[in-house]
Amino acid sequence: MRTYKLTIAYDGSRFRGWQRQPDTKLTIQGILETNITDIAGYPAEVNGSGRTDGGVHAKGQTASVILPGKVNEESFLLMLNQKLPADIRVLKMELVKNGFHARHSARGKCYEYVIDTAEKADVFTRKYTFHYPQKPDLQKMRAAADYLLGTHDFAGYTDRADEKSTVRRMDEICIIRQDSQGDGMIGGEKICIRYCGSGFMYHMVRILTGTLLEVGTGARAPESVKKSLESGQRADSGFLAPASGLCLTEVLY
Amino acid sequence: MRTYKLTIAYDGSRFRGWQRQPDTKLTIQGILETNITDIAGYPAEVNGSGRTDGGVHAKGQTASVILPGKVNEESFLLMLNQKLPADIRVLKMELVKNGFHARHSARGKCYEYVIDTAEKADVFTRKYTFHYPQKPDLQKMRAAADYLLGTHDFAGYTDRADEKSTVRRMDEICIIRQDSQGDGMIGGEKICIRYCGSGFMYHMVRILTGTLLEVGTGARAPESVKKSLESGQRADSGFLAPASGLCLTEVLY
Repeated sequence: MRTYKLTIAYDGSRFRGWQRQPDTKLTIQGILETNITDIAGYPAEVNGSGRTDGGVHAKGQTASVILPGKVNEESFLLMLNQKLPADIRVLKMELVKNGFHARHSARGKCYEYVIDTAEKADVFTRKYTFHYPQKPDLQKMRAAADYLLGTHDFAGYTDRADEKSTVRRMDEICIIRQDSQGDGMIGGEKICIRYCGSGFMYHMVRILTGTLLEVGTGARAPESVKKSLESGQRADSGFLAPASGLCLTEVLY
Repeated sequence: MRTYKLTIAYDGSRFRGWQRQPDTKLTIQGILETNITDIAGYPAEVNGSGRTDGGVHAKGQTASVILPGKVNEESFLLMLNQKLPADIRVLKMELVKNGFHARHSARGKCYEYVIDTAEKADVFTRKYTFHYPQKPDLQKMRAAADYLLGTHDFAGYTDRADEKSTVRRMDEICIIRQDSQGDGMIGGEKICIRYCGSGFMYHMVRILTGTLLEVGTGARAPESVKKSLESGQRADSGFLAPASGLCLTEVLY
């Protein structure tokens, strides 16, 4: 038995999310398992670092898979990418120690959330951004983000009540403005919020983003995010920003 | 009667091209005319600066339209963009002198062609690039491009035989490497070729691109492009690069 680590990019637009579902072929895990099973001739289980919701993207999702024996990674990957739809690409396949598990072994994760603040949404990135034609104040958003850094109980920043623990460590929240430059196909005025931390609960990044945007437009004060950390009440945090703007960029081991 | 100039962006992926067709709603001109006619209550004809083929994109297509009287541009544009599908956006609407015609008044055009040379295509830009997993030599491509600058008979660089004149002036061919930077959603190794000139014939930018890529991979010498300019034979130029990588970025007046 050999354990492999996969690094995966996907355009989540048309999928129902990462997690396999019995009655749909529209999950990334399901599609990967079907195709890896086909190539390996062995019922493969692909364990992701975590689920991503329907419509959420990934540039660096990871998964572990156990195969009966050693394979040639390069040719396996070539075959796999040929079989996969164009909106899923396995970027890397690495032999790792047995016992490695994409979720249990992960030390942390980074996400990016991209907001298109242009009056008219950029047609080329409309599926990879949240169109929010406002002029948020980034300094206020950064002030609010500072309150979120460190180890806190983020119970007020998730839509799932049944987590064993809602304590997480937030290591980084970077808010940067991205203007049209470098890439010919990208225009307009975008804001990228990068989050890195020990782990993120259901809807957590999207609620954090909605809350920070409310701070940016003046609908709430920067200090208010502290209050919702303390109260643990979902009602004290902001709106759920849509899935389209969210991308899992890295899983740290 | 008032003449307006429109500046339009579109993701051409799902369209049959710019030009109105009697039996399809899948043309950009057709969709614009239907919606402008609805708002204006007047049968509007939208004249583009030129046709773009099926699958070709635009960041700065222009069109002229004659309306019976003066309108409030801002609210007209707001209504129009609300009615248009998300892959077409009219970016600007300007009152211009009567007699202005988007095609006849144009002095020149700029196109960009984006090539994704990464081994695995970037899932987020796959519809806006040509996936060509090679390592073309940009210096050779630039040497070939130099032969194309200036006024030439480009008969060998079009797939339409019935042009009145096949002489065009090429003002600029810039070949730049675009790496992952600036924009969070863009990764991998892309090459952008920017063409500016007096005008471009059917398939011309795509054939020029295919020819330059053949130079880049060593399949032909840089000097060979000179030969196909002189012979005027389509057989002497290179392959037709796919529509997906092409974008009309600017029309000059």
